[in-house]
Amino acid sequence: MIYEMTIPQFTKMLHNFNKFLDKAQVNATERKFEMDVLLNARLAPDQFNFIRQVQLASDTAKYFASRLTGKEAPAWEDNEKTFEEVKTRIQKTINYLETFKPEDFKGSETKHITTPRWEGKYLTGLEYTNEHAIPNLYFHIMTAYSILRHNGVPVGKKDYLGEMPYKK
Amino acid sequence: MIYEMTIPQFTKMLHNFNKFLDKAQVNATERKFEMDVLLNARLAPDQFNFIRQVQLASDTAKYFASRLTGKEAPAWEDNEKTFEEVKTRIQKTINYLETFKPEDFKGSETKHITTPRWEGKYLTGLEYTNEHAIPNLYFHIMTAYSILRHNGVPVGKKDYLGEMPYKK
Repeated sequence: MIYEMTIPQFTKMLHNFNKFLDKAQVNATERKFEMDVLLNARLAPDQFNFIRQVQLASDTAKYFASRLTGKEAPAWEDNEKTFEEVKTRIQKTINYLETFKPEDFKGSETKHITTPRWEGKYLTGLEYTNEHAIPNLYFHIMTAYSILRHNGVPVGKKDYLGEMPYKK
Repeated sequence: MIYEMTIPQFTKMLHNFNKFLDKAQVNATERKFEMDVLLNARLAPDQFNFIRQVQLASDTAKYFASRLTGKEAPAWEDNEKTFEEVKTRIQKTINYLETFKPEDFKGSETKHITTPRWEGKYLTGLEYTNEHAIPNLYFHIMTAYSILRHNGVPVGKKDYLGEMPYKK
Protein backbone atom coordinates (compact mmCIF):
# COMPACT_ATOMS: atom_id res chain seq x y z
CA MET A 1 0.00 0.00 0.00
CA ILE A 2 2.93 2.39 0.62
CA TYR A 3 3.81 2.29 -3.07
CA GLU A 4 0.19 2.95 -4.11
CA MET A 5 -0.01 5.97 -1.80
CA THR A 6 3.26 7.57 -2.85
CA ILE A 7 5.07 6.81 -6.11
CA PRO A 8 2.19 7.43 -8.56
CA GLN A 9 1.13 10.60 -6.73
CA PHE A 10 4.72 11.88 -6.33
CA THR A 11 5.19 11.37 -10.07
CA LYS A 12 1.94 13.20 -10.81
CA MET A 13 2.92 16.13 -8.57
CA LEU A 14 6.31 16.42 -10.28
CA HIS A 15 4.54 16.49 -13.66
CA ASN A 16 2.27 19.26 -12.35
CA PHE A 17 5.34 21.08 -11.07
CA ASN A 18 6.85 20.91 -14.56
CA LYS A 19 3.66 22.39 -15.94
CA PHE A 20 3.60 25.35 -13.66
CA LEU A 21 7.22 25.98 -14.53
CA ASP A 22 6.13 26.18 -18.17
CA LYS A 23 3.37 28.62 -17.21
CA ALA A 24 5.95 30.72 -15.40
CA GLN A 25 8.14 30.90 -18.46
CA VAL A 26 5.27 31.92 -20.73
CA ASN A 27 4.31 34.56 -18.20
CA ALA A 28 7.88 35.88 -17.91
CA THR A 29 8.02 36.26 -21.69
CA GLU A 30 4.65 38.04 -21.81
CA ARG A 31 5.55 40.41 -18.99
CA LYS A 32 9.05 40.91 -20.44
CA PHE A 33 11.29 39.85 -17.58
CA GLU A 34 13.95 37.16 -17.35
CA MET A 35 12.82 33.73 -16.12
CA ASP A 36 15.93 33.85 -13.90
CA VAL A 37 14.14 36.37 -11.70
CA LEU A 38 11.57 33.74 -10.78
CA LEU A 39 14.13 30.94 -10.51
CA ASN A 40 16.00 32.96 -7.92
CA ALA A 41 12.97 34.39 -6.13
CA ARG A 42 11.94 33.62 -2.54
CA LEU A 43 9.16 34.72 -0.18
CA ALA A 44 11.52 35.80 2.59
CA PRO A 45 15.22 36.74 2.61
CA ASP A 46 16.12 33.72 4.74
CA GLN A 47 14.26 31.20 2.58
CA PHE A 48 15.77 28.97 -0.11
CA ASN A 49 15.11 30.24 -3.62
CA PHE A 50 12.92 28.59 -6.24
CA ILE A 51 15.72 26.46 -7.74
CA ARG A 52 16.67 25.10 -4.33
CA GLN A 53 13.01 24.20 -3.68
CA VAL A 54 13.04 22.12 -6.86
CA GLN A 55 16.23 20.36 -5.78
CA LEU A 56 14.79 19.64 -2.35
CA ALA A 57 11.50 18.32 -3.77
CA SER A 58 13.56 16.13 -6.08
CA ASP A 59 15.75 14.84 -3.24
CA THR A 60 12.74 14.18 -1.04
CA ALA A 61 11.18 11.95 -3.68
CA LYS A 62 14.46 10.29 -4.66
CA TYR A 63 15.61 9.43 -1.14
CA PHE A 64 12.13 8.28 -0.17
CA ALA A 65 12.11 5.68 -2.94
CA SER A 66 15.70 4.67 -2.39
CA ARG A 67 15.53 4.39 1.40
CA LEU A 68 12.28 2.47 1.55
CA THR A 69 13.39 -0.06 -1.01
CA GLY A 70 17.03 -0.30 0.04
CA LYS A 71 18.30 0.67 -3.43
CA GLU A 72 21.14 3.10 -3.83
CA ALA A 73 20.08 6.59 -4.94
CA PRO A 74 21.82 8.24 -7.90
CA ALA A 75 23.95 11.27 -6.91
CA TRP A 76 22.80 14.56 -8.41
CA GLU A 77 24.91 17.66 -8.10
CA ASP A 78 22.48 20.50 -7.28
CA ASN A 79 24.08 22.72 -9.87
CA GLU A 80 20.96 23.69 -11.84
CA LYS A 81 20.87 27.32 -12.91
CA THR A 82 18.66 27.65 -15.97
CA PHE A 83 15.03 26.93 -16.76
CA GLU A 84 16.05 23.93 -18.90
CA GLU A 85 18.28 22.52 -16.19
CA VAL A 86 15.53 22.85 -13.60
CA LYS A 87 13.09 21.06 -15.87
CA THR A 88 15.65 18.33 -16.52
CA ARG A 89 16.10 17.83 -12.79
CA ILE A 90 12.36 17.31 -12.36
CA GLN A 91 12.22 14.93 -15.33
CA LYS A 92 15.21 12.96 -14.02
CA THR A 93 13.36 12.53 -10.73
CA ILE A 94 10.22 11.32 -12.51
CA ASN A 95 12.28 8.86 -14.53
CA TYR A 96 13.92 7.55 -11.38
CA LEU A 97 10.57 7.07 -9.60
CA GLU A 98 9.26 5.19 -12.61
CA THR A 99 11.92 2.50 -12.16
CA PHE A 100 10.15 1.32 -8.97
CA LYS A 101 7.48 -1.36 -8.76
CA PRO A 102 4.94 -2.07 -6.01
CA GLU A 103 6.84 -5.21 -4.98
CA ASP A 104 9.98 -3.17 -4.28
CA PHE A 105 8.11 -1.70 -1.30
CA LYS A 106 7.01 -4.98 0.24
CA GLY A 107 7.55 -4.92 3.98
CA SER A 108 8.75 -1.31 3.87
CA GLU A 109 6.12 -0.20 6.46
CA THR A 110 8.12 -1.67 9.32
CA LYS A 111 11.64 -1.18 7.94
CA HIS A 112 13.95 1.06 9.99
CA ILE A 113 14.71 4.18 7.96
CA THR A 114 17.44 6.60 8.84
CA THR A 115 19.33 9.48 7.22
CA PRO A 116 22.95 10.64 7.69
CA ARG A 117 21.67 13.56 9.82
CA TRP A 118 19.79 11.48 12.38
CA GLU A 119 22.80 10.11 14.28
CA GLY A 120 21.63 6.53 14.33
CA LYS A 121 18.00 7.27 15.17
CA TYR A 122 15.33 5.90 12.87
CA LEU A 123 11.68 6.02 11.89
CA THR A 124 9.64 3.08 10.65
CA GLY A 125 8.93 3.10 6.93
CA LEU A 126 5.32 4.05 7.61
CA GLU A 127 6.30 6.97 9.84
CA TYR A 128 8.94 8.12 7.38
CA THR A 129 6.35 8.07 4.58
CA ASN A 130 3.56 9.90 6.43
CA GLU A 131 5.44 12.27 8.68
CA HIS A 132 8.55 12.96 6.62
CA ALA A 133 8.46 12.21 2.88
CA ILE A 134 4.89 13.21 1.98
CA PRO A 135 4.78 16.47 3.98
CA ASN A 136 8.30 17.41 2.81
CA LEU A 137 7.45 16.88 -0.82
CA TYR A 138 4.37 19.07 -0.54
CA PHE A 139 6.34 21.62 1.47
CA HIS A 140 8.85 22.23 -1.30
CA ILE A 141 6.38 22.03 -4.18
CA MET A 142 4.03 24.43 -2.41
CA THR A 143 6.82 26.84 -1.50
CA ALA A 144 7.85 26.93 -5.17
CA TYR A 145 4.20 27.34 -6.16
CA SER A 146 3.72 30.17 -3.65
CA ILE A 147 6.81 31.99 -4.96
CA LEU A 148 5.23 31.98 -8.44
CA ARG A 149 1.78 32.88 -7.11
CA HIS A 150 3.16 35.81 -5.15
CA ASN A 151 4.97 37.07 -8.23
CA GLY A 152 1.82 37.15 -10.32
CA VAL A 153 2.28 33.96 -12.34
CA PRO A 154 -1.27 32.75 -13.12
CA VAL A 155 -1.04 29.35 -11.44
CA GLY A 156 -3.98 28.04 -9.44
CA LYS A 157 -5.05 25.02 -7.46
CA LYS A 158 -6.02 23.16 -10.61
CA ASP A 159 -2.43 23.36 -11.87
CA TYR A 160 -1.22 22.12 -8.51
CA LEU A 161 -3.64 19.18 -8.26
CA GLY A 162 -3.52 18.23 -11.93
CA GLU A 163 -6.08 16.03 -13.67
CA MET A 164 -8.48 13.99 -11.58
CA PRO A 165 -9.32 10.45 -12.77
CA TYR A 166 -13.08 11.09 -12.55
CA LYS A 167 -15.39 8.25 -13.49
CA LYS A 168 -19.11 8.24 -14.31
CA MET B 1 -4.23 1.41 5.67
CA ILE B 2 -6.09 4.53 4.51
CA TYR B 3 -6.81 5.48 8.13
CA GLU B 4 -3.17 4.94 9.17
CA MET B 5 -1.95 7.15 6.33
CA THR B 6 -4.33 10.04 6.93
CA ILE B 7 -6.16 10.64 10.21
CA PRO B 8 -3.17 10.58 12.61
CA GLN B 9 -1.08 12.73 10.23
CA PHE B 10 -3.95 15.15 9.47
CA THR B 11 -4.43 15.57 13.22
CA LYS B 12 -0.72 16.15 13.70
CA MET B 13 -0.60 18.76 10.92
CA LEU B 14 -3.57 20.61 12.42
CA HIS B 15 -1.79 20.67 15.79
CA ASN B 16 1.31 22.06 14.07
CA PHE B 17 -0.89 24.64 12.34
CA ASN B 18 -2.22 25.71 15.75
CA LYS B 19 1.34 26.11 16.95
CA PHE B 20 2.41 28.35 14.12
CA LEU B 21 -0.68 30.44 14.74
CA ASP B 22 0.55 30.91 18.30
CA LYS B 23 3.98 31.91 17.02
CA ALA B 24 2.31 34.43 14.74
CA GLN B 25 0.45 35.99 17.62
CA VAL B 26 3.58 36.28 19.77
CA ASN B 27 5.36 37.84 16.80
CA ALA B 28 2.54 40.32 16.15
CA THR B 29 2.68 41.44 19.77
CA GLU B 30 6.49 41.81 19.68
CA ARG B 31 6.43 43.76 16.44
CA LYS B 32 3.44 45.79 17.61
CA PHE B 33 0.85 45.13 14.94
CA GLU B 34 -2.62 43.63 15.13
CA MET B 35 -2.91 39.87 14.60
CA ASP B 36 -5.82 40.74 12.29
CA VAL B 37 -3.30 41.92 9.72
CA LEU B 38 -1.94 38.39 9.41
CA LEU B 39 -5.37 36.75 9.59
CA ASN B 40 -6.45 38.81 6.59
CA ALA B 41 -3.16 38.63 4.67
CA ARG B 42 -2.65 36.85 1.34
CA LEU B 43 0.27 36.37 -1.07
CA ALA B 44 -1.63 37.70 -4.10
CA PRO B 45 -4.70 39.94 -4.43
CA ASP B 46 -6.76 37.13 -5.97
CA GLN B 47 -5.89 34.55 -3.30
CA PHE B 48 -8.03 33.61 -0.29
CA ASN B 49 -6.80 35.18 2.93
CA PHE B 50 -5.29 33.36 5.89
CA ILE B 51 -8.63 32.76 7.67
CA ARG B 52 -10.15 31.23 4.55
CA GLN B 53 -7.12 28.93 4.20
CA VAL B 54 -7.80 27.66 7.71
CA GLN B 55 -11.46 27.05 6.88
CA LEU B 56 -10.52 25.20 3.71
CA ALA B 57 -7.91 23.05 5.47
CA SER B 58 -10.55 22.26 8.09
CA ASP B 59 -13.17 21.38 5.46
CA THR B 60 -10.72 19.23 3.53
CA ALA B 61 -10.00 17.13 6.62
CA LYS B 62 -13.63 17.03 7.76
CA TYR B 63 -15.13 16.01 4.42
CA PHE B 64 -12.37 13.49 3.83
CA ALA B 65 -13.23 11.64 7.05
CA SER B 66 -16.96 11.95 6.56
CA ARG B 67 -17.06 10.91 2.90
CA LEU B 68 -14.75 7.93 3.24
CA THR B 69 -16.64 6.54 6.20
CA GLY B 70 -20.15 7.49 5.09
CA LYS B 71 -20.82 9.48 8.26
CA GLU B 72 -22.53 12.85 8.07
CA ALA B 73 -20.19 15.82 8.54
CA PRO B 74 -21.08 18.53 11.05
CA ALA B 75 -21.96 21.88 9.45
CA TRP B 76 -19.61 24.72 10.34
CA GLU B 77 -20.42 28.28 9.37
CA ASP B 78 -17.15 29.79 8.10
CA ASN B 79 -17.71 32.91 10.18
CA GLU B 80 -14.37 32.99 12.02
CA LYS B 81 -12.88 36.46 12.38
CA THR B 82 -10.60 36.51 15.42
CA PHE B 83 -7.47 34.64 16.45
CA GLU B 84 -9.46 32.71 19.08
CA GLU B 85 -12.15 31.75 16.60
CA VAL B 86 -9.58 30.52 14.09
CA LYS B 87 -7.89 28.42 16.77
CA THR B 88 -11.27 27.04 17.83
CA ARG B 89 -12.01 26.03 14.25
CA ILE B 90 -8.76 24.08 14.07
CA GLN B 91 -9.41 22.43 17.43
CA LYS B 92 -12.95 21.52 16.41
CA THR B 93 -11.53 19.81 13.33
CA ILE B 94 -9.00 17.87 15.41
CA ASN B 95 -11.77 16.78 17.81
CA TYR B 96 -13.89 15.62 14.90
CA LEU B 97 -11.04 13.58 13.37
CA GLU B 98 -10.42 11.97 16.73
CA THR B 99 -13.91 10.44 16.70
CA PHE B 100 -12.83 8.09 13.85
CA LYS B 101 -11.35 4.63 14.27
CA PRO B 102 -9.37 2.50 11.80
CA GLU B 103 -12.35 0.17 11.31
CA ASP B 104 -14.52 3.07 10.12
CA PHE B 105 -12.34 3.15 6.98
CA LYS B 106 -12.63 -0.54 6.15
CA GLY B 107 -13.23 -1.00 2.44
CA SER B 108 -12.98 2.74 1.81
CA GLU B 109 -10.23 2.28 -0.84
CA THR B 110 -12.75 1.16 -3.44
CA LYS B 111 -15.77 3.18 -2.32
CA HIS B 112 -17.16 5.70 -4.84
CA ILE B 113 -16.60 9.17 -3.46
CA THR B 114 -18.27 12.24 -4.91
CA THR B 115 -18.89 15.86 -3.92
CA PRO B 116 -21.82 18.18 -4.73
CA ARG B 117 -19.63 19.96 -7.32
CA TRP B 118 -18.76 16.86 -9.36
CA GLU B 119 -22.13 16.40 -11.07
CA GLY B 120 -22.37 12.69 -10.41
CA LYS B 121 -18.76 11.86 -11.24
CA TYR B 122 -16.72 10.04 -8.63
CA LEU B 123 -13.25 8.98 -7.55
CA THR B 124 -12.42 5.79 -5.70
CA GLY B 125 -11.62 6.23 -2.02
CA LEU B 126 -7.94 5.60 -2.74
CA GLU B 127 -7.86 8.22 -5.53
CA TYR B 128 -9.77 10.72 -3.42
CA THR B 129 -7.29 10.22 -0.58
CA ASN B 130 -4.08 10.49 -2.63
CA GLU B 131 -5.01 12.92 -5.36
CA HIS B 132 -7.55 15.11 -3.59
CA ALA B 133 -7.62 15.09 0.22
CA ILE B 134 -3.91 14.83 1.05
CA PRO B 135 -2.66 17.38 -1.54
CA ASN B 136 -5.53 19.78 -0.70
CA LEU B 137 -4.81 19.65 3.01
CA TYR B 138 -1.14 20.45 2.41
CA PHE B 139 -2.09 23.12 -0.11
CA HIS B 140 -4.08 25.13 2.42
CA ILE B 141 -1.77 24.58 5.35
CA MET B 142 1.25 25.53 3.24
CA THR B 143 -0.47 28.59 1.81
CA ALA B 144 -1.26 29.75 5.34
CA TYR B 145 2.33 28.97 6.37
CA SER B 146 3.73 30.87 3.38
CA ILE B 147 1.60 33.92 4.22
CA LEU B 148 3.18 33.99 7.69
CA ARG B 149 6.67 33.26 6.34
CA HIS B 150 6.41 36.06 3.81
CA ASN B 151 5.32 38.47 6.53
CA GLY B 152 8.35 37.74 8.68
CA VAL B 153 6.82 35.42 11.27
CA PRO B 154 9.68 33.14 12.39
CA VAL B 155 8.14 29.82 11.37
CA GLY B 156 10.28 27.16 9.76
CA LYS B 157 10.06 23.64 8.43
CA LYS B 158 10.38 22.17 11.93
CA ASP B 159 7.18 23.94 12.98
CA TYR B 160 5.48 22.63 9.88
CA LEU B 161 6.61 19.02 10.27
CA GLY B 162 6.28 18.89 14.06
CA GLU B 163 7.90 16.27 16.28
CA MET B 164 9.28 13.12 14.70
CA PRO B 165 8.79 9.85 16.59
CA TYR B 166 12.50 8.96 16.38
CA LYS B 167 13.61 5.71 17.92
CA LYS B 168 17.09 4.44 18.88
